[in-house]
Parts: sequence; C-alpha cells; structure tokens
Amino acid sequence: MKKSLGAKTIVFPAPVFVVGTYDGEGKPNVMTASWGGLCCSSPPCVAVALRKATYTYGNVVEQNAFTINIPSEDYVKEADYFGIVSGKDTDKFASTGLTPVKSDLVDAPYVKEFPFTLECRLLHTVEVGLHVQFIGEIMDIKAESSVLDEKEHLTIENVKPFTFAPGTRTYYGIGHYLGKAFSIGKEIQSD
Amino acid sequence: MKKSLGAKTIVFPAPVFVVGTYDGEGKPNVMTASWGGLCCSSPPCVAVALRKATYTYGNVVEQNAFTINIPSEDYVKEADYFGIVSGKDTDKFASTGLTPVKSDLVDAPYVKEFPFTLECRLLHTVEVGLHVQFIGEIMDIKAESSVLDEKEHLTIENVKPFTFAPGTRTYYGIGHYLGKAFSIGKEIQSD
Repeated sequence: MKKSLGAKTIVFPAPVFVVGTYDGEGKPNVMTASWGGLCCSSPPCVAVALRKATYTYGNVVEQNAFTINIPSEDYVKEADYFGIVSGKDTDKFASTGLTPVKSDLVDAPYVKEFPFTLECRLLHTVEVGLHVQFIGEIMDIKAESSVLDEKEHLTIENVKPFTFAPGTRTYYGIGHYLGKAFSIGKEIQSD
Repeated sequence: MKKSLGAKTIVFPAPVFVVGTYDGEGKPNVMTASWGGLCCSSPPCVAVALRKATYTYGNVVEQNAFTINIPSEDYVKEADYFGIVSGKDTDKFASTGLTPVKSDLVDAPYVKEFPFTLECRLLHTVEVGLHVQFIGEIMDIKAESSVLDEKEHLTIENVKPFTFAPGTRTYYGIGHYLGKAFSIGKEIQSD
C-alpha cells in the first residue's frame, strides 16, 4: 500500500524552461519556469504556467509572444539565477553576460548561448489558479548546428539539458540511454 | 546564428506520464503520454494532453478523474507498451502483469508497482488542436515508502524516473546531481 504525501506539485522529470520576452520598452528579459510541457502536436504547442506577479507574465500579455529556451547543464547557475531575480529591477542578460537575440518570427528574444529555442506566439491563456497557463504555438525551433546529429535531429546527448526535481528543489543532468520509444514495448505480447 | 528546424514539438526533458483511468464498465486502463507537465501550485494541478481518438480520452471525459503514474526506469518496456497498444481491445494490466489499485480519492486506478502516483480530479478541459489538454487538480500523491528519504521527500535518485526525447523518440534515465535550486544562481551578482 502506498503512503499519502498530500496534495503536492511533484512530477519527475520536470523541465527547466527559460522564457524569453520583451517588455513595453523593448528590454529583453528571461525567467525560468518548470511548470510546463508540450501540449499539442498539431498545431505544435507548448504550455508554460506563470504567476501574474512575474514581469514575464505582463510581457507575454503585452507582446502575445515568447520563446522557450532549453539551457544545457553548463548554464545551470544562470538558469537558476533567472528564476531568483526579477526583470522588474534587473537586467538579467547584463548580469550573466548572456546575449539576447531577436527572434525571426515572433516578438521575443532568445538566448544565443543556449542550444535551442522555441519561437512561440500566444494561442491560449488558461486561468488555472495562482498560475496562469500560456499555450504558445511553436512557429519554429532554432538550434545550434553543434547539437544536431547527422540527420539534423536534436539529440539529448548533444544538448545536455537538465531537469528540476520539485520537492527536494534540486537539479539533475540526463543519464544513460534506455531504449527506442514505440519499439522496446513491442517485446510485450498482448493477450 | 541558429539554424531553423521548422515547427516541431521538441523540448528536453519531456516526462513519461502513465495515465490511469476506468472505462464505463470499470475496466482499468493505462496509457503513456509525454505531452504534459505541472501547471499550477495552488490549487496544485497537472496537465496532460491526449488525442480524442484514445480510449483514455473517453474515460477521462466520463469519469472526470485520472491518475498520473511515474514509472521507474525498471518499467521502461511496460511504459512504452502502454503507449503502443489501445485499451479498446487490450487489457494492458493483464498483458504486463502489473496491478491496478483503486485510488482513495478519485475514481481512477493507479499502478501498484510504480513508485508514485498523482490522484487527479478533472478541473479544466482545453481544446488545443489534435490534442485536448486535461488539467487535473492533484488531490493527493501516493508513494512507496522505499522511494522517500528520511524527511519523507520523494527523491529523484530513489524514484529513478526516465525521460522521453521527442525527435529521436528515445528514452533516457536521469543523471548526476547538479545543484540546489533557488540557491546556486545566487553566486551571480545582479548589477
């Protein structure tokens, strides 16, 4: 029998999304959010949930656009910092020395040094509670050539992303290869 | 300059959620979904997006309840299998030898052998496109005592979850500890 832990927000693995936006004056900002994930294949969409108190929340509402940047584990300190301080009173790009680049397709900046970014236009806004969920249509993925394999696929070994563990509030890298999806399960025979 | 990959659904890490439901006759079913994530702290909520064609979709609509089960990497084959076959014509518990247990708080089964489960009642249904997103309020987390640390925290080292890599469609375990969240970023000084 399993033990009750109460109504907590814990799943493993949770992502580390760095959300890029411009404010009304065109100042680029980034914040880190782990409440999110993909939510539709067609149109391709990603969801990220933010508190209304964040600077990024107002920027998304104003610009109807954001980027989701996936940091490599080399940038775990920067990503953590982006979740600690607010863009209201801090230029997080200046503090970290990272570089904002204007996206081609949406009015939002991405982080040049991170391996890949999703350029998103705001499609739906869902008021859930303390967090508001923004569903963005993925207009394009932009990636460093260095993290693509010979078939131009983004590979997790090259990207070296990391995960946030809610509860213990810790970060972990990605580990060993376990198998091919939609394939290894075929060893099990249906009755 | 980054290279354009087109409008694809790729984030790292994506979770492996095993969604537990009952059908109209009370038959337990499980399916694997990677389009999802946490989406609110208060009330505590998790989102999972499913195609309407799935058996689980109809079950959630009917029962207004589901569980999100987090498999350990020992069960990667079973989790993959749960995403390949349909509960319409297969008893996936029977095929795998895993055990459905009725949740205490919601009308949905969980997987006894998996380390932990989220018992969810349906709060919102969002029509995004090919996928419909279900937002569930987390009523409770039930966990095996063996995966809790001395402070009764769920730890990622004990749970040994795994991640799905979209694009290459592969599974990976969780790797090494990188640091404490809301802490290691403090080494960076704001200007």
